Amino acid sequence: MPLQTIQTHIPAGFIDLGVGDPQFDLLPLQLLRDAAQDRLSQSDNSFLQYGAEQGDGYFRAALADFLSPRYGFPVSYEELFVTSGISGGLDLLCTLFTKPGDTIFVEEPSYFLALRIFADHGLRVVSIRTDENGLVSEELIEALKIHRPKFLYIIPTFQNPSGHTLSEERRAQIVSIAQERGFLILADEVYQFLSYTLIPPKPFGAYINSEHVISLNTFSKILAPGLRLGWLQTHASLMQKIVSCGVLDSGGGMNPFTSAIVRSVIETGGLEKNIDRLVSVFSTRVNVMDECLRQHLPDARFTTPHGGYFFWVNLPGIDAQALQTRARTHQVGLRPGIRFSSQNGLQDYFRLSISFYDSDQIEEGIIRLKRSVS
Amino acid sequence: MPLQTIQTHIPAGFIDLGVGDPQFDLLPLQLLRDAAQDRLSQSDNSFLQYGAEQGDGYFRAALADFLSPRYGFPVSYEELFVTSGISGGLDLLCTLFTKPGDTIFVEEPSYFLALRIFADHGLRVVSIRTDENGLVSEELIEALKIHRPKFLYIIPTFQNPSGHTLSEERRAQIVSIAQERGFLILADEVYQFLSYTLIPPKPFGAYINSEHVISLNTFSKILAPGLRLGWLQTHASLMQKIVSCGVLDSGGGMNPFTSAIVRSVIETGGLEKNIDRLVSVFSTRVNVMDECLRQHLPDARFTTPHGGYFFWVNLPGIDAQALQTRARTHQVGLRPGIRFSSQNGLQDYFRLSISFYDSDQIEEGIIRLKRSVS
Repeated sequence: MPLQTIQTHIPAGFIDLGVGDPQFDLLPLQLLRDAAQDRLSQSDNSFLQYGAEQGDGYFRAALADFLSPRYGFPVSYEELFVTSGISGGLDLLCTLFTKPGDTIFVEEPSYFLALRIFADHGLRVVSIRTDENGLVSEELIEALKIHRPKFLYIIPTFQNPSGHTLSEERRAQIVSIAQERGFLILADEVYQFLSYTLIPPKPFGAYINSEHVISLNTFSKILAPGLRLGWLQTHASLMQKIVSCGVLDSGGGMNPFTSAIVRSVIETGGLEKNIDRLVSVFSTRVNVMDECLRQHLPDARFTTPHGGYFFWVNLPGIDAQALQTRARTHQVGLRPGIRFSSQNGLQDYFRLSISFYDSDQIEEGIIRLKRSVS
Repeated sequence: MPLQTIQTHIPAGFIDLGVGDPQFDLLPLQLLRDAAQDRLSQSDNSFLQYGAEQGDGYFRAALADFLSPRYGFPVSYEELFVTSGISGGLDLLCTLFTKPGDTIFVEEPSYFLALRIFADHGLRVVSIRTDENGLVSEELIEALKIHRPKFLYIIPTFQNPSGHTLSEERRAQIVSIAQERGFLILADEVYQFLSYTLIPPKPFGAYINSEHVISLNTFSKILAPGLRLGWLQTHASLMQKIVSCGVLDSGGGMNPFTSAIVRSVIETGGLEKNIDRLVSVFSTRVNVMDECLRQHLPDARFTTPHGGYFFWVNLPGIDAQALQTRARTHQVGLRPGIRFSSQNGLQDYFRLSISFYDSDQIEEGIIRLKRSVS
């Protein structure tokens, strides 16, 4: 029996349109081989030592140079901290900024696996309504009459699962509210660079001078999840608390070895090329899924995503969990909306992803879904 | 100004005998270059995907094959879980098994940076006396009359800082006590393979069937700290809770990319050769430091370590913090005992390390220390 390497197992012949993993063909082995060759054939071996708590300065400088033109504002390496991915970053921030029983705010819907991290830290989750322009500021203000959250966790751009993007106006509003009311904003900007038909607003990194914002990002969707490498951007006042935590004092910075290799990926222009390729591939797939849904599921309500991985589909009157069960017999998968709800709602919604299958399989998957619905 | 890559900075000309980092010359760049070349030139790119929560099965199988003959009992890959090093492992276990305000037990003295991780989790630390044979069981029994700890954190072999090794008899006793009284033993076995003049007792991995033991280990001291890769070994009943935590569900297993490369290091025999080299180098240095201390600091009381990194030196009547200050003016460093105490004790002790300097520098450092004392 083969041993397990990967997290997600999909039976042969099954098309799981619910899966949010990148397709294997899109994981750039050669790019990483070349980068490893470049970095490991130099004489410097300092990345094998306990690393600086904030992360390798040269890696952060390369990353800052990469981010500045794409974010549209100057990013300094001093504002960047290396994480082991967004999940690891959220886990660290929960340890440092919360204690069990504390309240936090999330969007409704939100990324269900982040909710599991918060549960491990014993946090009470209150969800705030969203619309096509993301989190509704008025609802946030209402919730603050009852609760005093430690932080708001938000996925502002091409949200998971809704695909919606928070408007620039609301970003500024929400930051003001956070300053006034004294809570942090943890912005998960994982899909920021995967934009197809819309240039998204500036990420929350633009608001770090408020001293109430931590912007998290990762190489998982723009390079490879198996690297377990990401970063956060924040103000010096918050950075100080993060870099002086015990786990970094003991083990040094996160992932110096992988950082050194990814530094080569960035410096040689490989990251830019890889993102261009992903945007090209995913743009096509969005069009395919869009057409297929319109053709085969004419009752489905959805907004065509401008970026990211996900179609958030509403089929009025349907129970998406029951649909998932029927769909399995037709060899197709989806993620029911209830999994993204903090209040057992969204039962007539489901999430589909363009990340794991190419166009032909997406079409076949939607045809199977049609059979499951009717 | 050069950017910061590494954690520890030592001014030119200064000999910091307190530092517990490995020397740069002992970080095997070529070994990792060859391993990366081997792994990344194959067609399989599955280690770039979200990885299995417990860690790559093939890596764990290679590690189990490596451990079994060295531990002297069969280790199954099913008992192994991949961590981002012992610090990351301890942090995860604190999140999963404790809440702020809980009590834990540590040795007196103990590794001061682990104490910082426990502080971040709001844990109350109670320290238990040790002697030449490690933790004193009777003192543990006494402390249990007052406290109900969630776990005992222990460094059983070539302890940091004392260098002492817990006897086999006491290991069995302590495990029995943990079972009876319902607390976990978190055993930090970081120096297990660095044995020079004594074959240590079996690690706590031998006791996992008690269902009260988690044995932690790392590649930091036998390969390179910058990899941020380690493992823990435990019983299926505890493994279940660990692998199903939120941060793994979201991000997948820890460090699949680095695991895949280190798998090649193990499978090609490179890890074994590297350990042999380290044992040879460090054995010589222990002899040098031992002779130098006897010659230049005849009042110093210490036990020559049989393994690991550290000399734990007692100079009766001296204030080791004041000595540290004077030593700085002589361009030599040490770690005062008070840093390893949970009760502000051990003031006439200090820790010296053989890990960062070769024999000539160790001799020069001890001569400088002599000048600082007199």
